[in-house]
Amino acid sequence: MEGLSMKLVTAVIKPHQLDAVKEALHAMGVAGMTVSEVQGYGRQKGHTEVYRGAEYTVEFLPKIRVEVLIDEIDVEKVVDAVVSASRTGKIGDGKVWVSSVDEVIRVRTGERGLDAL
Amino acid sequence: MEGLSMKLVTAVIKPHQLDAVKEALHAMGVAGMTVSEVQGYGRQKGHTEVYRGAEYTVEFLPKIRVEVLIDEIDVEKVVDAVVSASRTGKIGDGKVWVSSVDEVIRVRTGERGLDAL
Amino acid sequence: MEGLSMKLVTAVIKPHQLDAVKEALHAMGVAGMTVSEVQGYGRQKGHTEVYRGAEYTVEFLPKIRVEVLIDEIDVEKVVDAVVSASRTGKIGDGKVWVSSVDEVIRVRTGERGLDAL
Ligand SMILES: Nc1ncnc2c1ncn2[C@@H]1O[C@H](COP(=O)(O)OP(=O)(O)OP(=O)(O)O)[C@@H](O)[C@H]1O
Ligand SMILES: Nc1ncnc2c1ncn2[C@@H]1O[C@H](COP(=O)(O)OP(=O)(O)OP(=O)(O)O)[C@@H](O)[C@H]1O
Ligand SMILES: Nc1ncnc2c1ncn2[C@@H]1O[C@H](COP(=O)(O)OP(=O)(O)OP(=O)(O)O)[C@@H](O)[C@H]1O
Ligand SMILES: [Mg+2]
Ligand SMILES: [Mg+2]
Ligand SMILES: [Mg+2]
Repeated sequence: MEGLSMKLVTAVIKPHQLDAVKEALHAMGVAGMTVSEVQGYGRQKGHTEVYRGAEYTVEFLPKIRVEVLIDEIDVEKVVDAVVSASRTGKIGDGKVWVSSVDEVIRVRTGERGLDAL
Repeated sequence: MEGLSMKLVTAVIKPHQLDAVKEALHAMGVAGMTVSEVQGYGRQKGHTEVYRGAEYTVEFLPKIRVEVLIDEIDVEKVVDAVVSASRTGKIGDGKVWVSSVDEVIRVRTGERGLDAL
Repeated sequence: MEGLSMKLVTAVIKPHQLDAVKEALHAMGVAGMTVSEVQGYGRQKGHTEVYRGAEYTVEFLPKIRVEVLIDEIDVEKVVDAVVSASRTGKIGDGKVWVSSVDEVIRVRTGERGLDAL
């Protein structure tokens, strides 16, 4: 059954890194993505973090959530590409997580499973 | 154990189709939904797509994410209803995916599982 | 293998309860969270619900989605804390759900699994 299931890779990243992530995914042939604006904090809650050149002590900072549905067979290379492209080396670079999806449907065509990606 | 687990149906659709999706879900007795604004692209990244009468060559287009927690027993009919109501037949109609949830809790009452839906 | 897997706890709550949820999670040592603005309705769709002192008959009301990646070993206490902190006792208090994640990566360090939380 290998290669027959789909995964959802979710990343919460710095807004400035979105272009790099998009390019990295495009370069490896990932066909689509969904992004949304979120806010969050990680382990340095209450400490300062730099955003757009200013120091913030507020707890929530703007982040971007990226979601990519992929063939399970590509999960390691997609995760590595997203992590690489998101990394600046400074605190607050983000988290990436992988979850399983039972089914995917492409609305226009009704295709299901890997064909729907 | 059939009928004892819950699924999350997520759809990323065209904003204009939200009312149709909402009506379709309501008509079949689905008790609730959560929506949020997202942006995305699918297979035509870099090509034009029409949104509100104008052609866009920008890569990200506004979409709506719909999330519905349901009894697993209803998953096929809910997916079919969402796909049907989202479809315009033009590119960019969206993706629907299904994932498993371990537990659901209704905050006000503390009910869990299917009773919480 | 117990304690070696991660869970994602998602809550859709009243905006006014976010501070209470944040404090409850912080008090129990949860290291991070992601929040976003959503809209939704539950079982009283079409009935009135009070938001910021005014009655609404519109169907969608503003809610906040909270997402927390945690060690599976903490799932019960995190769920209980979120449910407790979200509860006002009035309709519309929200839903909390738990799902499984296969992998988590901390972008800056490349750590994986429980070390990435
Ligand atoms: N446990 C968590 N659950 C849900 N979201 C989280 C969690 N931890 C972090 N996030 C999200 O990821 C974003 C970035 O987190 P961040 O990179 O600061 O994590 P970190 O573990 O503190 O790593 P670093 O030490 O590199 O800052 C946060 O703003 C938040 O949106
Ligand atoms: N692989 C994917 N991962 C995550 N989200 C996706 C993916 N593909 C598409 N989406 C989301 O779904 C939205 C609609 O995608 P779209 O309908 O264009 O898919 P498609 O496969 O290109 O189908 P079509 O050929 O009908 O346009 C995108 O804007 C994006 O938000
Ligand atoms: N089945 C569902 N699927 C997805 N999201 C839901 C669902 N039900 C509720 N929600 C989300 O949770 C929010 C709060 O729901 P709500 O608390 O009204 O649930 P309820 O079951 O009607 O409980 P109550 O009777 O206490 O109002 C909604 O606005 C919506 O965003
Ligand atoms: Mg941090
Ligand atoms: Mg497309
Ligand atoms: Mg309700």
